[in-house]
Amino acid sequence: MAYFQARTDLALEAREYVEDANGELRGVIVEEYEREKIGMHITKVQITTQNSAKLLGKPKGTYITLEIPGLCESGETSDVSEHHEEIAKEISLQLRELLPQKQESLQVLVVGLGNRDITADALGPAVAEHLYISRHMLQEFGEMGLGKNNFAITSCIVPGVMGKTGMETAEIVKGIVRETKPHAVLVIDALAARSTKRLNRTIQISNTGIHPGSGVGNHRNAIDEEALGIPVIAMGVPTVVDAATIVEDALEKMHKELNETAFLQARDSMVLNQLHNMYVTAKDIDTTIKRVSFTLAEALNMTFEEGVKQA
Amino acid sequence: MAYFQARTDLALEAREYVEDANGELRGVIVEEYEREKIGMHITKVQITTQNSAKLLGKPKGTYITLEIPGLCESGETSDVSEHHEEIAKEISLQLRELLPQKQESLQVLVVGLGNRDITADALGPAVAEHLYISRHMLQEFGEMGLGKNNFAITSCIVPGVMGKTGMETAEIVKGIVRETKPHAVLVIDALAARSTKRLNRTIQISNTGIHPGSGVGNHRNAIDEEALGIPVIAMGVPTVVDAATIVEDALEKMHKELNETAFLQARDSMVLNQLHNMYVTAKDIDTTIKRVSFTLAEALNMTFEEGVKQA
Amino acid sequence: MAYFQARTDLALEAREYVEDANGELRGVIVEEYEREKIGMHITKVQITTQNSAKLLGKPKGTYITLEIPGLCESGETSDVSEHHEEIAKEISLQLRELLPQKQESLQVLVVGLGNRDITADALGPAVAEHLYISRHMLQEFGEMGLGKNNFAITSCIVPGVMGKTGMETAEIVKGIVRETKPHAVLVIDALAARSTKRLNRTIQISNTGIHPGSGVGNHRNAIDEEALGIPVIAMGVPTVVDAATIVEDALEKMHKELNETAFLQARDSMVLNQLHNMYVTAKDIDTTIKRVSFTLAEALNMTFEEGVKQA
Amino acid sequence: MAYFQARTDLALEAREYVEDANGELRGVIVEEYEREKIGMHITKVQITTQNSAKLLGKPKGTYITLEIPGLCESGETSDVSEHHEEIAKEISLQLRELLPQKQESLQVLVVGLGNRDITADALGPAVAEHLYISRHMLQEFGEMGLGKNNFAITSCIVPGVMGKTGMETAEIVKGIVRETKPHAVLVIDALAARSTKRLNRTIQISNTGIHPGSGVGNHRNAIDEEALGIPVIAMGVPTVVDAATIVEDALEKMHKELNETAFLQARDSMVLNQLHNMYVTAKDIDTTIKRVSFTLAEALNMTFEEGVKQA
Repeated sequence: MAYFQARTDLALEAREYVEDANGELRGVIVEEYEREKIGMHITKVQITTQNSAKLLGKPKGTYITLEIPGLCESGETSDVSEHHEEIAKEISLQLRELLPQKQESLQVLVVGLGNRDITADALGPAVAEHLYISRHMLQEFGEMGLGKNNFAITSCIVPGVMGKTGMETAEIVKGIVRETKPHAVLVIDALAARSTKRLNRTIQISNTGIHPGSGVGNHRNAIDEEALGIPVIAMGVPTVVDAATIVEDALEKMHKELNETAFLQARDSMVLNQLHNMYVTAKDIDTTIKRVSFTLAEALNMTFEEGVKQA
Repeated sequence: MAYFQARTDLALEAREYVEDANGELRGVIVEEYEREKIGMHITKVQITTQNSAKLLGKPKGTYITLEIPGLCESGETSDVSEHHEEIAKEISLQLRELLPQKQESLQVLVVGLGNRDITADALGPAVAEHLYISRHMLQEFGEMGLGKNNFAITSCIVPGVMGKTGMETAEIVKGIVRETKPHAVLVIDALAARSTKRLNRTIQISNTGIHPGSGVGNHRNAIDEEALGIPVIAMGVPTVVDAATIVEDALEKMHKELNETAFLQARDSMVLNQLHNMYVTAKDIDTTIKRVSFTLAEALNMTFEEGVKQA
Repeated sequence: MAYFQARTDLALEAREYVEDANGELRGVIVEEYEREKIGMHITKVQITTQNSAKLLGKPKGTYITLEIPGLCESGETSDVSEHHEEIAKEISLQLRELLPQKQESLQVLVVGLGNRDITADALGPAVAEHLYISRHMLQEFGEMGLGKNNFAITSCIVPGVMGKTGMETAEIVKGIVRETKPHAVLVIDALAARSTKRLNRTIQISNTGIHPGSGVGNHRNAIDEEALGIPVIAMGVPTVVDAATIVEDALEKMHKELNETAFLQARDSMVLNQLHNMYVTAKDIDTTIKRVSFTLAEALNMTFEEGVKQA
Repeated sequence: MAYFQARTDLALEAREYVEDANGELRGVIVEEYEREKIGMHITKVQITTQNSAKLLGKPKGTYITLEIPGLCESGETSDVSEHHEEIAKEISLQLRELLPQKQESLQVLVVGLGNRDITADALGPAVAEHLYISRHMLQEFGEMGLGKNNFAITSCIVPGVMGKTGMETAEIVKGIVRETKPHAVLVIDALAARSTKRLNRTIQISNTGIHPGSGVGNHRNAIDEEALGIPVIAMGVPTVVDAATIVEDALEKMHKELNETAFLQARDSMVLNQLHNMYVTAKDIDTTIKRVSFTLAEALNMTFEEGVKQA
């Protein structure tokens, strides 16, 4: 059992963390693939039992993780990744697997979570900025307004953070869902990873929604199928590491390698309390957010354009 | 009767427009005051009959207009108006007259309408930025979280424009009101005036809500008491004039002064059709929006702080 | 001779304006082409004499105007014009004609003029945002740092407006040019047109630089070859019309068609003085600026990438 | 001697760091004061010899540090610190000590360093946004344009980061100084601290300018009196800690307390290499930057308004 609890939004990392100590894990199915051409590694983690959910601190469901070293790199002469197009296409394919299948056009409400005034937290608002939104065209002009038949019908909200709205995001989304009746909600958010090496190059797509503040249990503020009554797909990219995690990880490793006295001395040298409410992020986070949000938006636009034709 | 229909959000201007032709107007009560110290002229227009509402193209209700030449001027060495504090206080007093009176703390949802990416339309989002929001503090810490007893309890949403959300603003607000149950809604928006001389120096506060696109009649997208079931106060400042209005006003005047042949020749010289979807705005609109939104937010913060103590 | 002076930054319009009254014009050579596939009309105006320069209110030199109705339109399912790529290529070709030819890599300082806080004036800063800048790579890593040999070497400054800097833009640019010694300056700016029908769909490229405030004569604040000692190419898109122009144009037409008494009556009906410091702009200026700046930046990136290989 | 080199922009921290190991330090004079009413602790560090400069990794000169726990806190019902006014006044007093004294009005070029797209690095641009700039008023209207006689004359540039300009900031500033000839340069920048407990509540004012990338020695990119020929005052607030520093500080402490074997094991447990190019910052950095930049701008405006009357 780990000495500290993992602070990560990635199921992939939570699994590694538990596995380190326990080896195999019942109630968790893991599959892995490669997309060699674009250097993408895909891991599909399915948490199938309440027990394994509790152990990993993540709700039951499917978590698809795409590791793409080139995601936040610029091309030789352009501002986006060289494989931008192929990466977006692969993301779109994976996203489509988790979206519900409908006979009619799928109505999706996209929710861009996060704080647009903090660079590392602005992924959701930045993706929203680039989306092709169509619901009002349908309302106003009927099917003609969509440009093509069978386009997915999209709406989008950037609710803002609780310090500025005074409301839980879950309250805002619930209200809008009841009023506008989409078939599914797609939440975009910046995530926290446990390791800096995953920052800005990993995409997690899950069908378990969003559970701010906690893992399993506290459903008051959850944005998930249980709360909204429709499927909630969450898509995120880790952009920060909780600062305390960096030191905790070091201590975790020392705990195995040092004797108890040395470990306790080492732990007391650490300055964990001054890291409260601090996070670690990359120095070039502004260009990174621009590139990643551009590719994610492209993937979403691809999905919404062709989504229904495939159904 | 006017040759063209007035394109103005100001009841004050609509009244002048109709009055020009008709003299007195049944079903409209007008009172005027001066606040000489801060150079403020206050006009209270009450539209009391369905008939006068139709004639003015504005719903029945009360419209308070504050004309403040100094509103968008900088002080001698600071960035806000010299009378900033007194102006905010007077706005607060007028706003309080239209807000409902409660025994308990008043729960207000502020809605910052408009497009934050277009300077002249960004008043609502800019005011929202400066508000002191408290509802989540009450939820989390109880009355202690508010700092003082009997503070008004505020929440706030900046819904964004339909082209980016795919939803009517009325749908978004309705959903959030049903979920969070405020006592009143306060909508902040940039308005269109008919005359450039009113731009950025006039504040209109009304208890009639917002009726995008039309005046009376079309209630589908209205944000008003009838639609939401709670009082809706609207507060706005004209920042643009519809471009066609400038030419229409000139034609209107010519219509009275020229003979018919000359007038028709004059009208044909006008280029009205190229003004479709154009607006007129001030060249220094960026600093203006900053100053005005700062003063409006101050007025709102004053209102919310003391609002209930007065009740 | 025109009754009012034309307020336009477009040589094309200045010529039309004078031509309306005078027919042909000595000292002005005009050539026109079509690029039918992308619906582009190209006009090349050369002002060759001091006299014609004075008449048109524009300095001697070459003005290439690209009229592209599709420039600010979105594609069917994407956010940029369908012919985005071809349009950028054609702009790049025209731009290259005016840039100096060098044996070595061309060093260009791009200047993004305008106010990033006013949507209609933010074209320069928005284009700057998307540029591929390379000069510091060369300084740090030598030719290896550029990715390819013979890439043009680019630097970029967004100086901000005088109200915020307290300095003439010409002073800022002059200082930076002396210190960093580029071969040429490329200024990007939002322009004023005389007709709203040219807004957001016209690109003007000239080798005459920028002369804020006036046409010919006042060289104190000019950003041109005479002031900087190196070629200055200016590229701009009209995004606003001076509000007074709309009315002046109507009066101009009336002056020809009405008798003197009727005209004077008509003129007095006009409200020119209230239009001082006002401008007319499109209601969807935010998405327009995004699209146009994206296409212009693409054109510049193409030019800098291949510019020298062609030389 | 310290095991790792301190990564801090604060002379105060550099001194503590060296002192920990060495006790007293020749060539460094330290004075301390309290301003009890506003909870401010003032430390004045003078580095007087080349040797102590090298030891501390900071150029010779005077460093005034103001520690103000309330700097980034909001008041009870407003968005700025309760002692905002008094804090600004004290900062202004300290700043005035380092600014040159002139018989005539002092001409100051303010330089807002940093990246406006990264929240934690946006302090310089944010302060610049709120400054009262006057130089162009003097140029245009003479002394009348300044509102009062003997106002300090201010200009301001926000140069942007090298990745976007392709130029060293020193090149840009040097060019502008030569062209516009101010008496002094005042550089505003976000700093890196060594300890998170100093973040957002410490202001350092020095007369040594800015030396990006290194401490002493590398003068190529320095913005200081030697490079510009006029006094350069630097004012900054630490908003980030280099991520590697957190771990290095822990190791430093272990080095003293653990035996060598345990220490080496501990060190190997650390993940220093994954912290390259990462920084630690506060989660509420957006509201912090807003508050701090507002107070700093107020302090600067006070200084410029009264600066010369005192001389």
